[in-house]
Amino acid sequence: MDPDFTPLDAALGDDADGYLLDADGTDSTQRYLSGFDAPDPFVTCYTPDGIHLLVSGLEYGRARKAARADTVTRLSADDYRERVNELGRATGRGAVVADFLADHGVDRVAVPGRFPLGTADGLRESGVAVRVDESDAIAEIRAVKTAEEVEHVRRAQRANERAMAAAESLLESASVVDGVLHRDGDPLTSEAVRREIELTLVREGCALDESIVACGADAADPHDRGSGPLRADEPVVVDIFPRDTETRYHADMTRTFVKGTPTETLREWFDLTDEARKAALDAVGPGVTGGAVHDAACDVYEDAGLPTLRSDPDAETGFIHSTGHGVGLDVHELPRIAPDGSELEPGNVITIEPGLYDPDVGGVRIEDLVVVTEDGYENLTEYPVELVL
Amino acid sequence: MDPDFTPLDAALGDDADGYLLDADGTDSTQRYLSGFDAPDPFVTCYTPDGIHLLVSGLEYGRARKAARADTVTRLSADDYRERVNELGRATGRGAVVADFLADHGVDRVAVPGRFPLGTADGLRESGVAVRVDESDAIAEIRAVKTAEEVEHVRRAQRANERAMAAAESLLESASVVDGVLHRDGDPLTSEAVRREIELTLVREGCALDESIVACGADAADPHDRGSGPLRADEPVVVDIFPRDTETRYHADMTRTFVKGTPTETLREWFDLTDEARKAALDAVGPGVTGGAVHDAACDVYEDAGLPTLRSDPDAETGFIHSTGHGVGLDVHELPRIAPDGSELEPGNVITIEPGLYDPDVGGVRIEDLVVVTEDGYENLTEYPVELVL
Repeated sequence: MDPDFTPLDAALGDDADGYLLDADGTDSTQRYLSGFDAPDPFVTCYTPDGIHLLVSGLEYGRARKAARADTVTRLSADDYRERVNELGRATGRGAVVADFLADHGVDRVAVPGRFPLGTADGLRESGVAVRVDESDAIAEIRAVKTAEEVEHVRRAQRANERAMAAAESLLESASVVDGVLHRDGDPLTSEAVRREIELTLVREGCALDESIVACGADAADPHDRGSGPLRADEPVVVDIFPRDTETRYHADMTRTFVKGTPTETLREWFDLTDEARKAALDAVGPGVTGGAVHDAACDVYEDAGLPTLRSDPDAETGFIHSTGHGVGLDVHELPRIAPDGSELEPGNVITIEPGLYDPDVGGVRIEDLVVVTEDGYENLTEYPVELVL
Repeated sequence: MDPDFTPLDAALGDDADGYLLDADGTDSTQRYLSGFDAPDPFVTCYTPDGIHLLVSGLEYGRARKAARADTVTRLSADDYRERVNELGRATGRGAVVADFLADHGVDRVAVPGRFPLGTADGLRESGVAVRVDESDAIAEIRAVKTAEEVEHVRRAQRANERAMAAAESLLESASVVDGVLHRDGDPLTSEAVRREIELTLVREGCALDESIVACGADAADPHDRGSGPLRADEPVVVDIFPRDTETRYHADMTRTFVKGTPTETLREWFDLTDEARKAALDAVGPGVTGGAVHDAACDVYEDAGLPTLRSDPDAETGFIHSTGHGVGLDVHELPRIAPDGSELEPGNVITIEPGLYDPDVGGVRIEDLVVVTEDGYENLTEYPVELVL
């Protein structure tokens, strides 16, 4: 079932006739609107009459078969080259796109904030009015998933759980020599655990660019991927965010493990983070803002006397990120579960991932993936929350 | 060894004080200039004084450790939110970036053509002059690889060869039942061969978003990934373009196989394509244009009476793409081995990949990856060129 694109009519307002994209198929907004994937940039224009594509000759046949388009126009390589030679690369591209728009009766367009400036300047020089859509309408449409999209995410999360189980099993079965985890006589490294995660995901039909297996001080930096030998009695943060290669939808999950005995502080941090996770989940529901969900997590930490970005915007330890984000064709998309997060709607797929960080303690993060429903949420994550292996 | 960024001074000319990027770490130009990777957009500004980053609090610590930056500024989340609430998302971001630029004495910037329009419009409203760099200076710098970068590509191509061998072995060892390749009693599919390619690459430290294993009519579309059971006596185009997960550099290679007996036409096409490959390779060297290399391949096909885009810009069968492209942090980058391709330089890493396509015959493509040297080229590809398995 195609998404409902009619909200774009409102984004056009009374000063635009078309909603224009110029990006390759790795751009999720392009992929979502066009239903097409190509390695080089192509152009999609939504008008109230339909969806129109401008693609290179190389992509023309495939676009006519595979794209969501009502019309597909083949870009003339010679014409393009001539315009680029005459006007420069960016302006020349704009001139070619302006001709395509004119063929569809469009001379005023709304575009997403990340639309390429070169094409925009070229369009403007060709007399096309280009306005940034501050409402980010396609991102807003993407934030509410159809039932089919939720199933894509659920399938990716099932694969993700098998990868997490493979990682946990490696950590659990490791022997400990001088405080370092070992496997088959060699130190067990972040890299080796990531490799096992990747192999499991490929077998499950997923891919991923990277994952996080971070131990000790590495784990105290939320985006550190981790490297080198893993140590006993220290937290290992495992954060996996695969993409289903068929559907392109993502999943996302984090667990924190200790092989051996956690310090008392770490144990407290883990319990507190699980409490923050539950408090945030309890807050999730339609009509509740992402800000309120974030506040629920902050409350738990601040009540325990720990710093958050809410209590100290410059905090470098404690709860130093937002509580979550939307997940779909992008692993980070709307809605935000953060101070400025807007009201949730049924169909939003979001992470809830509170955490605590301090180089002297390490890091703890627990992340579930849930879908907002008519009366609350459904947790798409079926993986236990346990610290000690 | 860091690349030499001083050519950016020329791109600044006399009307810009800084070269500005606003993109996440998956943008190769951002990654190349900043030496940093982050999942959300951040800002990098090159000035003749150094490289300056503006990152979120979440990335600040890691950026100070890992980035190529001379200075790293932490974006204040509160300030950002305030500006966005006041001015809108795009304009607000522009205002925050304008403040950062002012701190570095920059009020006129050059940007790549794909710089986000929202930030650009916001900067312009804040009084910063923003000009598209039509010379695409960073892409030009990226096109000439250091010795270290060439080794990154070579390593990825070695992994690629093991993946190609795994694919070839699956095809070769298949049994044939009613014209369809079988393995362990089940039809052998494009999907199964791609899976084997992916598993091999993961073991080799590489990842890939997709690969092409296309048979028969699928293979007649150069960008069709292929699907379903593979057939005997028909061409199977295998095109693999992995990314080394550590270095992020790509490789690229294509071979065409037939399990069984090719038709006479297919055999001729294969021999002709290998001839076109050799003719294009013979043409490669410093000072030769990408256009001349492309012409060498076109000559072979046209002399044999087959259509090319050069002889007929609207051709839908025959040689319907360019001869090659640069490979590096992106799988498609400069230089172009195409009609508008400029002069090659030592250090360019390029593909040479002529091919022929017709839905009635299938497709044939043979692709090598080479580095331009002082006196010609070195072929980074050590995989045999053989059609019949």
